Amino acid sequence: MSRITKSEIAEIVAEALPFAASLDPKIVRLKAGDVTVRMPFRPDFIRPGGTIAGPLMMGLADFTMYVCVMSLIGRVELAVTTSLNINFLRKPAQRDMLAHGTMLKLGKRLAVMEVSLYSAGDKEPVAHVTGTYSIPPRG
Amino acid sequence: MSRITKSEIAEIVAEALPFAASLDPKIVRLKAGDVTVRMPFRPDFIRPGGTIAGPLMMGLADFTMYVCVMSLIGRVELAVTTSLNINFLRKPAQRDMLAHGTMLKLGKRLAVMEVSLYSAGDKEPVAHVTGTYSIPPRG
Amino acid sequence: MSRITKSEIAEIVAEALPFAASLDPKIVRLKAGDVTVRMPFRPDFIRPGGTIAGPLMMGLADFTMYVCVMSLIGRVELAVTTSLNINFLRKPAQRDMLAHGTMLKLGKRLAVMEVSLYSAGDKEPVAHVTGTYSIPPRG
Amino acid sequence: MSRITKSEIAEIVAEALPFAASLDPKIVRLKAGDVTVRMPFRPDFIRPGGTIAGPLMMGLADFTMYVCVMSLIGRVELAVTTSLNINFLRKPAQRDMLAHGTMLKLGKRLAVMEVSLYSAGDKEPVAHVTGTYSIPPRG
Repeated sequence: MSRITKSEIAEIVAEALPFAASLDPKIVRLKAGDVTVRMPFRPDFIRPGGTIAGPLMMGLADFTMYVCVMSLIGRVELAVTTSLNINFLRKPAQRDMLAHGTMLKLGKRLAVMEVSLYSAGDKEPVAHVTGTYSIPPRG
Repeated sequence: MSRITKSEIAEIVAEALPFAASLDPKIVRLKAGDVTVRMPFRPDFIRPGGTIAGPLMMGLADFTMYVCVMSLIGRVELAVTTSLNINFLRKPAQRDMLAHGTMLKLGKRLAVMEVSLYSAGDKEPVAHVTGTYSIPPRG
Repeated sequence: MSRITKSEIAEIVAEALPFAASLDPKIVRLKAGDVTVRMPFRPDFIRPGGTIAGPLMMGLADFTMYVCVMSLIGRVELAVTTSLNINFLRKPAQRDMLAHGTMLKLGKRLAVMEVSLYSAGDKEPVAHVTGTYSIPPRG
Repeated sequence: MSRITKSEIAEIVAEALPFAASLDPKIVRLKAGDVTVRMPFRPDFIRPGGTIAGPLMMGLADFTMYVCVMSLIGRVELAVTTSLNINFLRKPAQRDMLAHGTMLKLGKRLAVMEVSLYSAGDKEPVAHVTGTYSIPPRG
């Protein structure tokens, strides 16, 4: 069971994460170490070629990892990205995007996660991400 | 000498890159394969801990790579990110950010680049990025 | 069904891949886009801390990706690594290592794969890899 | 000035790093956070296409990072790779390979480095690597 709730996440987004808020993310699945986030499509997400701008996909993946970390360790808002690696696999559709993140390894100081991104309704991922979050020492 | 001009870049940003436009990027250096972009600081770029949101830094690096590719091959707007890897090194200051991108290898179909991100005025990079862009076949 | 056989792979390893041969790899699963390779443990694989040397794990993952590509496109020996990203997750045991590789996206010129490495018998991966292979144009 | 000497490194390689020893590495430059290692060419380093096997290049880069870390923190043999990202840029020549590694950020627990690999005598790198090493807590 997740150690953070959907409404705590909504609070953090509204109060402290203006960039994530601009993606208007919806938490569709929230279990310990297993999280899915939906990013509703908007026409201003597009770039030449009709594909969704890469940084928005990276932002969605990064937010998903942040939620995934907190689903396991609770409301540690100061957890922060230390690295991210993304492979863009297929051209996304002009539809909502789903990000499914899972914890690969949760250590005391570093969490390593994997996120797959999908155009809503499609089986094959449009991008694959691995990343690490640093967990600050807690008193 | 760059094969694309500052005003062509401004045109593309204004007409086709709403996300990049939201960063309000300024091209401060534009040579063939050697590009520097400045992202002016805004308070809504911040996240918990007072650091600049990672996806904005990734977006700045990605835009810098796009400009870097076009500085060498001209106005090929359909060039698109295939992969990106970022290591966050130091906490950025609440100041403008500079991204310095250089071409590591320009092939016929794939361009590999390196981007270092700095808080304006600081010597040590706040993040280091490598990434690849796919170059579409041209008639 | 794999487009390359175990004995063709053994041939390539013996004739043209001295480094891979030094790992003494055994193909334990060979399906189209879904491959498992076992690397038998040897005491000279160890480094300080009693863990298996990182480059051997990277070599096992890289070989697994090579086999995975050929399981889908046939005996294209000139397919070559263009990038690899590895996260080391847990300390491996001093036992055989298994590498399970799957195809994330097979394009005309680029194949993107994912490989998870395990100490034989353990459920949790010791490392996670994503990588890309370049597929040469074929007449 | 490096906090470890060439002969201490040779000792570690001979006693505890059989894989690195198999590359027969020579330290050609050893300054604090700035290291160059040469890997002499051997015919059994080759793979199809006449290029040097990727894992050997990864091994050379990984060893260079290990030396780079110790050049700054001293003989901490238990420092270990946590992640590595490599982009293969150009086909190496059948010659010695040089790896030039520099420290991007040395933290208390994590060191982030960059390594460029060259065929001896050539200006353009054949591969570019970034990686992280974990530094164990010390009493």
